[in-house]
Amino acid sequence: MKRTLGTCYYPEHWEPEIWPEDARRMVEAGLTWVRIGEFAWSRLEPTPGDLRFEWLDQAIEVLGSAGLKVVLGTPTATPPRWMVDKHPDMIALDVDGKPRGFGSRRHYCFSHLGYREECARIVGLLAERYGANSHVAAWQTDNEYGCHDTTISYSDAARVGFQGWCGERYGSVEALNNAWGNVFWSMEYNRFDQIALPNLTVTEPNPAHSLAFRRYTSDQVVAFNRLQVEIIKQHSSAPIAHNYMGRITDFDHYKVGDDLEIASWDSYPMGFLEDRVGADAAHQKAFARQGDPDFQAFHHDLYRAVGKGRWWVMEQQPGPVNWAPYNPAPLDGMVRLWSWEAFAHGAEAVCYFRWRQAPMAQEQMHAGLLRPDSEEAQAMRDVRQMRDELTDAPEVQPAQARVGLIFDYDADAAWAVQPHGAGLSYFGLVFDAYKALRKLGLSIDILRPETRDFAGYDLILAPGLMHMSEALKKALSQQNAQVLIGPRSGARDQDMTIPVPLPPALPGLDVTVDRVESLRPDSPEALSLSGAFTGYREILTGSATVTLTAEDGNAAVMSHDGMHYLAGWPDAEGWKIILTPLCAQAGLEVIDLPEGLRRRDTASETFWFNYAAHDVTFDGRSFAPASVTRDPRDA
Amino acid sequence: MKRTLGTCYYPEHWEPEIWPEDARRMVEAGLTWVRIGEFAWSRLEPTPGDLRFEWLDQAIEVLGSAGLKVVLGTPTATPPRWMVDKHPDMIALDVDGKPRGFGSRRHYCFSHLGYREECARIVGLLAERYGANSHVAAWQTDNEYGCHDTTISYSDAARVGFQGWCGERYGSVEALNNAWGNVFWSMEYNRFDQIALPNLTVTEPNPAHSLAFRRYTSDQVVAFNRLQVEIIKQHSSAPIAHNYMGRITDFDHYKVGDDLEIASWDSYPMGFLEDRVGADAAHQKAFARQGDPDFQAFHHDLYRAVGKGRWWVMEQQPGPVNWAPYNPAPLDGMVRLWSWEAFAHGAEAVCYFRWRQAPMAQEQMHAGLLRPDSEEAQAMRDVRQMRDELTDAPEVQPAQARVGLIFDYDADAAWAVQPHGAGLSYFGLVFDAYKALRKLGLSIDILRPETRDFAGYDLILAPGLMHMSEALKKALSQQNAQVLIGPRSGARDQDMTIPVPLPPALPGLDVTVDRVESLRPDSPEALSLSGAFTGYREILTGSATVTLTAEDGNAAVMSHDGMHYLAGWPDAEGWKIILTPLCAQAGLEVIDLPEGLRRRDTASETFWFNYAAHDVTFDGRSFAPASVTRDPRDA
Amino acid sequence: MKRTLGTCYYPEHWEPEIWPEDARRMVEAGLTWVRIGEFAWSRLEPTPGDLRFEWLDQAIEVLGSAGLKVVLGTPTATPPRWMVDKHPDMIALDVDGKPRGFGSRRHYCFSHLGYREECARIVGLLAERYGANSHVAAWQTDNEYGCHDTTISYSDAARVGFQGWCGERYGSVEALNNAWGNVFWSMEYNRFDQIALPNLTVTEPNPAHSLAFRRYTSDQVVAFNRLQVEIIKQHSSAPIAHNYMGRITDFDHYKVGDDLEIASWDSYPMGFLEDRVGADAAHQKAFARQGDPDFQAFHHDLYRAVGKGRWWVMEQQPGPVNWAPYNPAPLDGMVRLWSWEAFAHGAEAVCYFRWRQAPMAQEQMHAGLLRPDSEEAQAMRDVRQMRDELTDAPEVQPAQARVGLIFDYDADAAWAVQPHGAGLSYFGLVFDAYKALRKLGLSIDILRPETRDFAGYDLILAPGLMHMSEALKKALSQQNAQVLIGPRSGARDQDMTIPVPLPPALPGLDVTVDRVESLRPDSPEALSLSGAFTGYREILTGSATVTLTAEDGNAAVMSHDGMHYLAGWPDAEGWKIILTPLCAQAGLEVIDLPEGLRRRDTASETFWFNYAAHDVTFDGRSFAPASVTRDPRDA
Repeated sequence: MKRTLGTCYYPEHWEPEIWPEDARRMVEAGLTWVRIGEFAWSRLEPTPGDLRFEWLDQAIEVLGSAGLKVVLGTPTATPPRWMVDKHPDMIALDVDGKPRGFGSRRHYCFSHLGYREECARIVGLLAERYGANSHVAAWQTDNEYGCHDTTISYSDAARVGFQGWCGERYGSVEALNNAWGNVFWSMEYNRFDQIALPNLTVTEPNPAHSLAFRRYTSDQVVAFNRLQVEIIKQHSSAPIAHNYMGRITDFDHYKVGDDLEIASWDSYPMGFLEDRVGADAAHQKAFARQGDPDFQAFHHDLYRAVGKGRWWVMEQQPGPVNWAPYNPAPLDGMVRLWSWEAFAHGAEAVCYFRWRQAPMAQEQMHAGLLRPDSEEAQAMRDVRQMRDELTDAPEVQPAQARVGLIFDYDADAAWAVQPHGAGLSYFGLVFDAYKALRKLGLSIDILRPETRDFAGYDLILAPGLMHMSEALKKALSQQNAQVLIGPRSGARDQDMTIPVPLPPALPGLDVTVDRVESLRPDSPEALSLSGAFTGYREILTGSATVTLTAEDGNAAVMSHDGMHYLAGWPDAEGWKIILTPLCAQAGLEVIDLPEGLRRRDTASETFWFNYAAHDVTFDGRSFAPASVTRDPRDA
Repeated sequence: MKRTLGTCYYPEHWEPEIWPEDARRMVEAGLTWVRIGEFAWSRLEPTPGDLRFEWLDQAIEVLGSAGLKVVLGTPTATPPRWMVDKHPDMIALDVDGKPRGFGSRRHYCFSHLGYREECARIVGLLAERYGANSHVAAWQTDNEYGCHDTTISYSDAARVGFQGWCGERYGSVEALNNAWGNVFWSMEYNRFDQIALPNLTVTEPNPAHSLAFRRYTSDQVVAFNRLQVEIIKQHSSAPIAHNYMGRITDFDHYKVGDDLEIASWDSYPMGFLEDRVGADAAHQKAFARQGDPDFQAFHHDLYRAVGKGRWWVMEQQPGPVNWAPYNPAPLDGMVRLWSWEAFAHGAEAVCYFRWRQAPMAQEQMHAGLLRPDSEEAQAMRDVRQMRDELTDAPEVQPAQARVGLIFDYDADAAWAVQPHGAGLSYFGLVFDAYKALRKLGLSIDILRPETRDFAGYDLILAPGLMHMSEALKKALSQQNAQVLIGPRSGARDQDMTIPVPLPPALPGLDVTVDRVESLRPDSPEALSLSGAFTGYREILTGSATVTLTAEDGNAAVMSHDGMHYLAGWPDAEGWKIILTPLCAQAGLEVIDLPEGLRRRDTASETFWFNYAAHDVTFDGRSFAPASVTRDPRDA
Repeated sequence: MKRTLGTCYYPEHWEPEIWPEDARRMVEAGLTWVRIGEFAWSRLEPTPGDLRFEWLDQAIEVLGSAGLKVVLGTPTATPPRWMVDKHPDMIALDVDGKPRGFGSRRHYCFSHLGYREECARIVGLLAERYGANSHVAAWQTDNEYGCHDTTISYSDAARVGFQGWCGERYGSVEALNNAWGNVFWSMEYNRFDQIALPNLTVTEPNPAHSLAFRRYTSDQVVAFNRLQVEIIKQHSSAPIAHNYMGRITDFDHYKVGDDLEIASWDSYPMGFLEDRVGADAAHQKAFARQGDPDFQAFHHDLYRAVGKGRWWVMEQQPGPVNWAPYNPAPLDGMVRLWSWEAFAHGAEAVCYFRWRQAPMAQEQMHAGLLRPDSEEAQAMRDVRQMRDELTDAPEVQPAQARVGLIFDYDADAAWAVQPHGAGLSYFGLVFDAYKALRKLGLSIDILRPETRDFAGYDLILAPGLMHMSEALKKALSQQNAQVLIGPRSGARDQDMTIPVPLPPALPGLDVTVDRVESLRPDSPEALSLSGAFTGYREILTGSATVTLTAEDGNAAVMSHDGMHYLAGWPDAEGWKIILTPLCAQAGLEVIDLPEGLRRRDTASETFWFNYAAHDVTFDGRSFAPASVTRDPRDA
């Protein structure tokens, strides 16, 4: 497949006179795609019912006739001011009960049915008008669901919706009381309409209550998106995407993805570094102008799973952003490196956000490919190089990886509700596993928890799945691959109760978690060889073989016949000593990559990416900073 | 007295079929007491007036006939959901005015008279039904008053109640204005109903206003508790207890205790360590699996005073809790150590919380004596050892200590209102004094501020009493003992005004505080020998003898005829050099205990407790980690 | 001019019987001024319309006839309780929408027109009664506008006022939408009454919106003050002052100052040190008992500009305050040092806050010149020395400095709205420049941004002026002086949009900011000689001469013909290497002062102030701690 480039463009921000020149320059820069429209509602409908699509007609025509393919966004992430007059209760409430009002974006509650109707109306109008437009080659629904912590809302609309959802799920309030264990602290309800949202309680709410509300909320995002998809499909056969935001896990992206043809995500490597990667200050400093070497790769692999193979980077950072605590410029060459990393993981397209830096409003400090005065900005040199390399270099050939890593949004919700120790998260655990695998030079596929066919995987990791279906347990137990499960796997039933027999209750592996503990950050539990458990560990009993011990004599890993249970959260060194023998058993060759250097295999090539700000030497070769090196596979 | 063990049990959480087996196993484990009922309101009265006591009848019968004594709790800490429908304004408001609603526990405002009536009703029903039940050997009112910061509420009920309380206390609004100094900043009121609660002000409220509100609030807790006690006493002659929570000082426990036969408290040594002890990170790390060596001892001594000699540990941590920032498991043996420390301080009973770990709801990560699958958990080995040792070993013989330390809840409130320096608290000051005394090997009695008869005490400490009655000043000045007073002693009159003549105005000790200052944590004021004042110090004048100076030449201690005024907040080394000569003058022999090792004298024995995670050698003897050593007194 | 001393006195806090003795002692201590009345509304008007001015008549008579000059304050900072009953909506709301109610002070919203009328009424009554009183020698309006973060209020009154202000400023909502760039994210308004305040938005509001609201709010402070001034002037010819609070920049002090004869400010050197100076812990520790060596000097120079030459210290810290995180006592002699520093900068008067320490209410821990028992407190020795020195020593002769530093409140607002990097502020940047100049031994004039006549200045600094008028650009480009501009200078137009051509667009200096970046605190960009840019830097292009480079090769300073553009925020060492050659070019001799020692030139003298807590040696001379040394100029 030919990999393509694109950009995000806002014709409504500029005089129509400059649109043709912008389009010409985009084509010259090697761009194929131009995404437009996703924040333009106030220009499409300045007052209720007063529709003004002519400018959009013209913009699509100008861009399309210049040779660009248009991705048309639905404008539902930015309801106009008059919408809030019409539906004052559409505003989401935060956990403290404060409104999250008009004045920026995403000021709506997913549970508000009146706003959903308004979205259906505007999406219908757009789909009708542009569904058959040959320049509109793809659609995007809304923009960055969940960004700015907007998934979970404590509004009245959410409360009423949640009560109904509970009614449907549990049938009777007795069944709900029983499933949640509400007898504890006399929290039993008499009627569904007594169920409040799990905020503003004296101390923590029942974790079953909180988890149910997170699941309800995730379902609303799915329903909100599905409504738009169904309308677009009535008028258009172009593929539909959503642009997910990095490190947002508070709704089930797989379920949203099931309604879409393409998954895409918005990749801001330096924007993410400070607050989302979870790195320490030394790491943040070392990669301040490059971004974390694994964070984008993880998301690439995740959205490949969300997109069932088809995925894009819809927004690629091209220079400093405006929204991180500190906003330095990237090293020269990083925009190219980030782009190639995406393609090496199978991205169909990489679109740069945005074409021209906006001189006004919230993102005026966010770089574009052009400066506000239309001169070229820092990234344009990298973009031209990408254009030339995509033209000349061999096409990227995707390949299934031999390592599978399960990521489950529901497990992330369960950990969020009950981390047990400060700072612990499911995302953090899985990302640590991913980083360790990648440090060993491995390429990884991220797998859905519904996966039952694991053919082709020699090593499968399923850490931290708080709830595991019996079907998944059985499927994993039947693989010839090496399978690593734990910690906290199967620790809860579907309603957040500790099951009896005690976890993990895995077929074919006699291990029981006798007790668990969370650890102070300064008090890791050393492993017998090297490395340690940090933050969380379990004490195991059972007849399986202890294949690794902690220094205090307790089991760190127990194994039987290719199944391994991991009794804690390893640090980087711990992951290495745990994974290395498993890789050997799985027939996977590993290497020990230096800081910053990373490898990615495609079917025909091995890509080397040096994220370090300095030369890195490995295996006798030297890699320049911000460099991309392509070897034929097995070179 | 025979010391006894017990546990906390929730029959409503389990099928009745397993109650008999649970009861049998409790008896086998050496338990005498079983506390039940304190969170069961929704099962006793599922809807308003629909009373279902039969299951409780049966549970008491099963437990009692197995040989256990029942402590029956009133269920008022967990009003059911329908109660909040009936009394929506019973919900407390936090300092920001946010409701603290249904969904966990303690969702009531102590000032709400409607809820008090409901409590009186349910307590009356319980007392009538079980007052004569021979298995019910004790009562517990409510559960952990003040836990989750629930003493102080900024509700309308509290505001109206406070206005009435002010009216009663001051008689006229002019008197109140005068007592509080409301002329300052034109804060004068015209009528009592203009007095708002001291929250949501632009900058800090008048400290007199804040202190009055804290006193009002404390009085509501006393009244709330007294109402229940008076009803129970109409039907039962069994003793009544309340289970106070550790490190909660925002109501006057002595006044609550005056209405009860027994004081009890809930001892979670590891749960307290992170946020309540006030220790630094190194100390928290060193005692992460043991808890602070002095924190429980302090509370034991405090509740002995609250209980007028009769006190229990109603809830003893048996393993990891769910609620601290980090929740490690204790060292093996610590449950036994904690239990013996309690008995050595005179506890009548120690009850483990809880019998079986709950698989559901907020405390599902809280260990019990049994795992959720009814297998024995970590603590059961220690419990069995306690059972055997209580059977075989000599009985604990209490003795009055020779050191008395005054603790005053009203002083704690005054410091909370006006710490003067960030992080300073009365509790912290008194606890530092306590730690220093205990590090010297001393056993301590905590005394109420109403104490006038100090017979038997050779050393009396009364640090930080912001307000001192003339009677207390006089009584202390008449002792033959060594008496240490200050800092901030007598610094305010009963309405939080600086008195003239200036503090401390002690009979028999000519000392005046010329000025005070709070110090940066990195800027202690060194004492001339060793040690320092940290956080707070005073500059003194007067004719008393300077018995210790600071390096800057100012007096650190001034003394006359056994009365000593302390001019600051000493660090550990400072306390040592200050207390050592006082002990010598008092005829008290002191030792210098190593980190972790502690001593407690009873009438007939000396107990040694090693809280360290390693062997400790002292005076030629070696003490194993988590060990308890009993010597005959004077051994 | 004869420099004078004074104090702040509250006759309403004390029995009238002691007023004469207080007055006598003030005179004896060398005090000229006594400020009274500014918090006394509840005593002047205990209930609505019930006026009680007799006590104030008497107090003025007692004080005045003792020889003191009275500064009479309007009591509008402390509306009585009944006022809030009358105007419940006068209460300001904080950014979260919470009321900032009665119970301390400054509980009013500047936008509330009803409260403004009440202020006009009470000020009118005072002015009528005392306008011709010969003892009333000056007036003070209100007290510390903006203290306790009270400038910005999100009340309904503010919202309605802001909508009207927008209407006046922009004429049409289309013009406003265009000026703010509201097309971005569909934020366009249909009507002015849809414009909410820029709080409670989902993510950050439009910076143009936020900046406009800050300007509106500043205008309300100006109008609030002007109303009082106009009324007083109808009845009195005495000069009118306001006492600004240190480190408050959220309204335009110049505009308030334009309506007043005298600027004054409240100088709490140790109170400011912890939270307002922006110093690190080591610096705070070193100057814990002295205050920052430059912070007061900066404010002295700033308020000389605000007061158009006439300025006072209305409140001078005399000992520990009650309101800093830690409140130590000053070194002996510091009160004298602070006083002389003020006079050396041209203060007409220094008044000590307060005469006698209040035994009650919020400031009972705030030192006065007398203790609560009327004995002399620590500062009185310094005051007496001041009295004698003012009598005997030569008069201070003011002189224009040769260094001008522009300070612009509007730029501070723009940076506050958009700091770009965490922790960056305009005040911080300008104060760093000021500190660097003062460390070089220079005396500085702070200049208003409206300054066009720069005669007499050899070095002019104008860092960080986000918006620069064309007139100012032109005036600066025409000076013979060395002129340093940047970073961020001219970065925005008047409505917070990036202008094209890109910034700074300075006549006579061909420099363009190609891109900007903010830096992690641990990642400064080294300069080629020594020092670094910290927090913020820009990449420049253009034909001007690169006169300093960063280590990465980018320009750090570009210059042409005496105009210099600074491409980042220098650290202390960076400022030194940048300013030193500029001073040489400007013909200014510089020295390198040791930590703590500072110099200030008047027309006839050079003052040396040693803020260090130890002896400091410089140029062969030794300076004692807390010492003031006066040399004849050119000594």
